[in-house]
Amino acid sequence: MILVINAGSSSLKYQLIDMKKESVLAKGLCERIGLTGNISHKTDKGVTEYETPFPTHMEAFQELVKLLTTGDLAVISSMEEISAVGHRVVQGAELYNSSVLVSDDVLSALETCSELAPLHNPANIMAIRACMEVFDPSVPQVAVFDTAFHQSIPKHAYLYSLPYELYEKYKIRRYGFHGTSHRYVSDRLAQLMDCPLSKMKVVTCHLGNGSSITAIDGGKSVDTSMGFTPLAGITMGTRCGSIDPSVVTYLMEKEGLTPKQMDDLMNKKSGYAGVSGVSSDQRDLMQAAGEGNKRAKLALDIQQYQLRKYIGSYAAAMGGLDAVVFTGGIGENSPETREAACKGLEFMGITLDRAANAACRGVEALITAPGSKVQTWVIPTNEELLIARDTKEVAGL
Amino acid sequence: MILVINAGSSSLKYQLIDMKKESVLAKGLCERIGLTGNISHKTDKGVTEYETPFPTHMEAFQELVKLLTTGDLAVISSMEEISAVGHRVVQGAELYNSSVLVSDDVLSALETCSELAPLHNPANIMAIRACMEVFDPSVPQVAVFDTAFHQSIPKHAYLYSLPYELYEKYKIRRYGFHGTSHRYVSDRLAQLMDCPLSKMKVVTCHLGNGSSITAIDGGKSVDTSMGFTPLAGITMGTRCGSIDPSVVTYLMEKEGLTPKQMDDLMNKKSGYAGVSGVSSDQRDLMQAAGEGNKRAKLALDIQQYQLRKYIGSYAAAMGGLDAVVFTGGIGENSPETREAACKGLEFMGITLDRAANAACRGVEALITAPGSKVQTWVIPTNEELLIARDTKEVAGL
Repeated sequence: MILVINAGSSSLKYQLIDMKKESVLAKGLCERIGLTGNISHKTDKGVTEYETPFPTHMEAFQELVKLLTTGDLAVISSMEEISAVGHRVVQGAELYNSSVLVSDDVLSALETCSELAPLHNPANIMAIRACMEVFDPSVPQVAVFDTAFHQSIPKHAYLYSLPYELYEKYKIRRYGFHGTSHRYVSDRLAQLMDCPLSKMKVVTCHLGNGSSITAIDGGKSVDTSMGFTPLAGITMGTRCGSIDPSVVTYLMEKEGLTPKQMDDLMNKKSGYAGVSGVSSDQRDLMQAAGEGNKRAKLALDIQQYQLRKYIGSYAAAMGGLDAVVFTGGIGENSPETREAACKGLEFMGITLDRAANAACRGVEALITAPGSKVQTWVIPTNEELLIARDTKEVAGL
Repeated sequence: MILVINAGSSSLKYQLIDMKKESVLAKGLCERIGLTGNISHKTDKGVTEYETPFPTHMEAFQELVKLLTTGDLAVISSMEEISAVGHRVVQGAELYNSSVLVSDDVLSALETCSELAPLHNPANIMAIRACMEVFDPSVPQVAVFDTAFHQSIPKHAYLYSLPYELYEKYKIRRYGFHGTSHRYVSDRLAQLMDCPLSKMKVVTCHLGNGSSITAIDGGKSVDTSMGFTPLAGITMGTRCGSIDPSVVTYLMEKEGLTPKQMDDLMNKKSGYAGVSGVSSDQRDLMQAAGEGNKRAKLALDIQQYQLRKYIGSYAAAMGGLDAVVFTGGIGENSPETREAACKGLEFMGITLDRAANAACRGVEALITAPGSKVQTWVIPTNEELLIARDTKEVAGL
């Protein structure tokens, strides 16, 4: 069994995965860590949710282990059945291009990356340390990075055209995120198409509350829409995506905003929410647009248009295109977005099967017509499974 | 005769154009206005250059009129032969989607746009006012905007995904620039291809010290790479182009920069100059790269890669592509850039004629092979001529 952990500063998501069948035995969420504490836990046998104090991540780990091993919803008889723990870590910077076994040196190295992901890496590190307290030291802990898959991006695609010294001093560059998702769906695509990734040029579109598009050439990420942070790229739920950088300084000057306030505006008050004034959730926008709300329609149009441009842009970057994949909450469940994103791309070889697309929600499906030069697929993502697979491999299990 | 004026806060470029033959009779540059003053003037008969005080733009106009009408390099016998004056104006905001006859109302309106182009519009307005002092009130003065051609861009392509109220309050949106250049070369393309623009999907690449790419569908600009300001888009001589907007706030925080200082860094110390540390001039970079300078090579690679992506992106935006045009100092004179920009785009129908491309410097030429689905052209731009044509038409001459 492998335990997969995705921790925030006050939360901790977990899945226990049986690697023989690659099936989820239990999953849950510890919330309000450092505050009142709440846990929800789900298995095939049922669900439980209750409040319990979580002064730190350590108590959360103790509680989830208790739920996994004892009581009505237990799925294993003891902690010893958990052979390794895999942790999602947001930022591995230029230090890690693949998953790594956690050691004291690795933890120190991750701390040096915290500057680049101040909201995420400290929480990830805190969770790993807490987990190491609760589990026996012999249980391998593996770090799986959002950024690692994108470390293959060539320098002409990751470097910003700022004074070079700033790259050297601060490591400011494109890192890209959602790496485990882009990797998972491209691996799965190769299985579904029965064609090795090494022979394909693929664009993967992970569309959710956060969205990113990746160009994958021969199985390697060669470009991605998110950048130094997850703000860049296309319009998202509350993030503005890429804008003229002069707008940032102009607005700060006009509105008297600090860098932090401006960052908040761009990350939390923009995107779908900012344009529509309705919601950051695409389902709400679809409904409002259907009822005639023009700004909701506009927000959707903006995102779909940008998406279409990214597909064309990455096809050009790779010098061709064999497949497009949609994943993430929106990518898996919004036929409207997929249709709009492929609109007009027949000249590039994408011929959508409108009925197949309309019928597909949250399941694997080919949504281009037979004979379409470029195959387009919907593939639900499974980042936890990829973390578990990496953990198994890195731990040598 | 039409006099074409392109004024900065301390400079004034002019051309006198004979519209019967669309030929340039004289051109020149007044510099150091408000300082010591210097004028250079050129005709078929020769060149002159000398210092003379220019307390304001008015004295510069008086001097250039003197040179045009008297002495060895005179090309007309009196001012009365100048039937209209056309002024380049950078920012017409949402007020002007075509060129306009200048009136007091227009000047007031232009002043309201100054907020959006504080470096350019005040100088343009100052020059127009000075010109109106020097010329008889009966001589029509016409304003031709860099932004007007891009006013056809649809809202889903010009609106940033920021809180909508900021668009309403500050008119923050994509405006685009180099409009006269994109318009000129697309008009000329239609003549060269003997095909109406209304039937074509075209990408025009104006590449110089400042660079912008435009998608022109049916003769109308539908998207362009510059944005709210001329900073956005691809890497330029000293401008960084589009970057993750979080980099702006991150750097301001780390380096303790004001919005103005950050804007300077992105506009004046970035791009070719910032990445290479060598020069902002592509010719210097080509030489340095040829001598093995890796950062010079990298700066060139970055721009060429971004250019390729824009071509793909805009083809996708328009749902097809019939022609690509290169113009501007780099676009007209750098076969290397053109070849790199088209590299790998055979899948989209661009088949470069490498010999034709290599042979073309600064002249009109088709550089794709016979049978290439997408024709690619080099067309030297002529913004002054387009300003003169617009001036003639708007003035009803």
